Amino acid sequence: MQNFTFHNRTKIIFGRGTEEKTGEEVAKYSDKILMVYGGGSIKEYGIYEKVMSSLEAAGVEAVELGGVKPNPRLKLVHEGVEICREENIDFVLAVGGGSVIDTAKAISIGVPYEGDVWDFYAEDRTIEESLPIGTVLTIPAAGSESSPGSVITKEEGGLKRDAGSNKLRPEFAIMNPEFTYTLPDYQTASGAADIMAHVMERYFTHEPHVDFTDRLCEATLRTVIENTPIALEEPENYGVRAQIMWASTVAHNDLLGTGRVEDWASHPIEHELSGMYDITHGAGLAIIFPAWMEYVHQKNLEKFAQFAARVWNEEVDFASLERTALKGIEDLREFFRRVGLPTRLSDLEVEISEADLEEMADKCTENGPVGNFVELDRDDVLEIYNLAR
Amino acid sequence: MQNFTFHNRTKIIFGRGTEEKTGEEVAKYSDKILMVYGGGSIKEYGIYEKVMSSLEAAGVEAVELGGVKPNPRLKLVHEGVEICREENIDFVLAVGGGSVIDTAKAISIGVPYEGDVWDFYAEDRTIEESLPIGTVLTIPAAGSESSPGSVITKEEGGLKRDAGSNKLRPEFAIMNPEFTYTLPDYQTASGAADIMAHVMERYFTHEPHVDFTDRLCEATLRTVIENTPIALEEPENYGVRAQIMWASTVAHNDLLGTGRVEDWASHPIEHELSGMYDITHGAGLAIIFPAWMEYVHQKNLEKFAQFAARVWNEEVDFASLERTALKGIEDLREFFRRVGLPTRLSDLEVEISEADLEEMADKCTENGPVGNFVELDRDDVLEIYNLAR
Repeated sequence: MQNFTFHNRTKIIFGRGTEEKTGEEVAKYSDKILMVYGGGSIKEYGIYEKVMSSLEAAGVEAVELGGVKPNPRLKLVHEGVEICREENIDFVLAVGGGSVIDTAKAISIGVPYEGDVWDFYAEDRTIEESLPIGTVLTIPAAGSESSPGSVITKEEGGLKRDAGSNKLRPEFAIMNPEFTYTLPDYQTASGAADIMAHVMERYFTHEPHVDFTDRLCEATLRTVIENTPIALEEPENYGVRAQIMWASTVAHNDLLGTGRVEDWASHPIEHELSGMYDITHGAGLAIIFPAWMEYVHQKNLEKFAQFAARVWNEEVDFASLERTALKGIEDLREFFRRVGLPTRLSDLEVEISEADLEEMADKCTENGPVGNFVELDRDDVLEIYNLAR
Repeated sequence: MQNFTFHNRTKIIFGRGTEEKTGEEVAKYSDKILMVYGGGSIKEYGIYEKVMSSLEAAGVEAVELGGVKPNPRLKLVHEGVEICREENIDFVLAVGGGSVIDTAKAISIGVPYEGDVWDFYAEDRTIEESLPIGTVLTIPAAGSESSPGSVITKEEGGLKRDAGSNKLRPEFAIMNPEFTYTLPDYQTASGAADIMAHVMERYFTHEPHVDFTDRLCEATLRTVIENTPIALEEPENYGVRAQIMWASTVAHNDLLGTGRVEDWASHPIEHELSGMYDITHGAGLAIIFPAWMEYVHQKNLEKFAQFAARVWNEEVDFASLERTALKGIEDLREFFRRVGLPTRLSDLEVEISEADLEEMADKCTENGPVGNFVELDRDDVLEIYNLAR
């Protein structure tokens, strides 16, 4: 087990009606804020109105920035930075899912920074200053509501890159599971894949003596595996939606990675996919993660057999840990299929040529190899794309 | 699942050599502190010296208050309050286990309060102000290093009572598993019982749709169950000690109780025992918890069967959930026995008469019934003491 520091100050306010506390929480920081959101769904489902009236009751003025899209774009971040500067705004409230929150985070580091905020995404650069941010979460998936990360896509070149700092953890996250009732099935399923991927990026490690976090990871995976199919059948089942929503936060608040060397190869490999073709991140992960597993499982059969046994209830085949390991990988792919996700590149409605795959492999490894479980160079990544076809 | 707020700001600094960061962390708050510790063990094993030299290097002056005993006493708290006031001290550092930390917490609320600090323990009173505190943990058990609670014993009448507030969470917890190598076996085992009890007080609830926290609880229990016997055989096994130490914090940092109605009957029932006879709290819990389970299990056989199946790998007897439930309770008692703990009042080296039990039952319920899984009045508590004989 490795040394670690764990410090997550985000205040979680969870449950029915908690959006009414938005104003009260925001007012601790500012009386004039930028409120970032996505398309029309928060207006359609009354979330916008509830948040606005809570802000108003607390005497908080909100300047609005709507229009965040999935795989959020740098252009809108630049717009947000401009507005904050012009209007002297010192707090950013994100009302939405991961893309909205990541946009808010990018704006929060862009405002006090003299250069282009993309610098923090293009290269590994320390974030010295940022505005405080808060969130009202509507999609359980990215875990951005209490994570230190942000992922932004630069339109030119379809570059999807991330930035991270403890400073980027939101001050609070308001989480009402009812807000997830109206998610389209595909988004519920993609969210599940994203949550599971956050856990698995941490789970697969060669680090010994991490039984505790192994078991916490397994607990989180099983929760998502058991509750997602029920949520698809019963979209307004509060208890089930609540399990998924809370699991999505814990999956990515850094607790599950304490003391471990995490992997984080599948995420950048997927980012090339959703950056280039604008497919849903979670759906991309449902394609990439099993392929990554197939490519690397032999490097630690014990860990993959443990995954099969403890997460998927597979009986251990003591004559062949590899057979056990492969069952776990197939169980994962089958689960993704069952909840309606693509599990092969060929399931996508886009044409991807061999040349495209090579370009993606180039871009993915332009700053060097990715991953820690196995260090993957350009040819390894290409091989994984090919396994995913 | 219930609505909840979860806000744990304690910074965890975990691993080998982390005590060297004590001075740096403390200096963020103060340059003159009260340093609270227990008996001679931190001096004997070099911890005292390491902490002092780190403080010195950071320019922090430490006024010392040693002599904290298990089941920490109010008298020493009063002493600490006096010292802080006389010396104008505004930060308290606890170097030790739960008793030391709980003493530091009591001092931290006593200093800014005009009345007797016992008021916060004797009755339910809001804590308005407290000094910040930090901890260097040496015993994994109480979870006080990031919990909002403190338990103190008033010498007159052997009254053991608790106080709680988010303000009582330490600012930081420095946790080096090597510091637990020299714990006597009995203390390692008692710590395990305490950790497990913190989980089980949360686990046994009638609240539906708490699958996620159920599984996190089970993960924590299994970690302690598997690692404690190894720690007893191999006291200097770093990885094993690290699992137990980190599990002890998470068991009581409030994550595992999110969204649930927690029980908390066994703790006050045990507090009468350790308050009156000065036995180790964890050992007392090893006696009381299985007796409590025997008394209440019929109120929710499904939950107790789940405990037996998921924590102890018992096969579910579908013809009788009660038989399954009882196996889980017996497994718990057997585990406590195996690690060398008493599991019956008769295992203790004290004479406890029927009149003593009645007095304890009276005191335990003097402010009304205890527990939520089942509300227990004076006669129920007496029955549990009798089941524990």
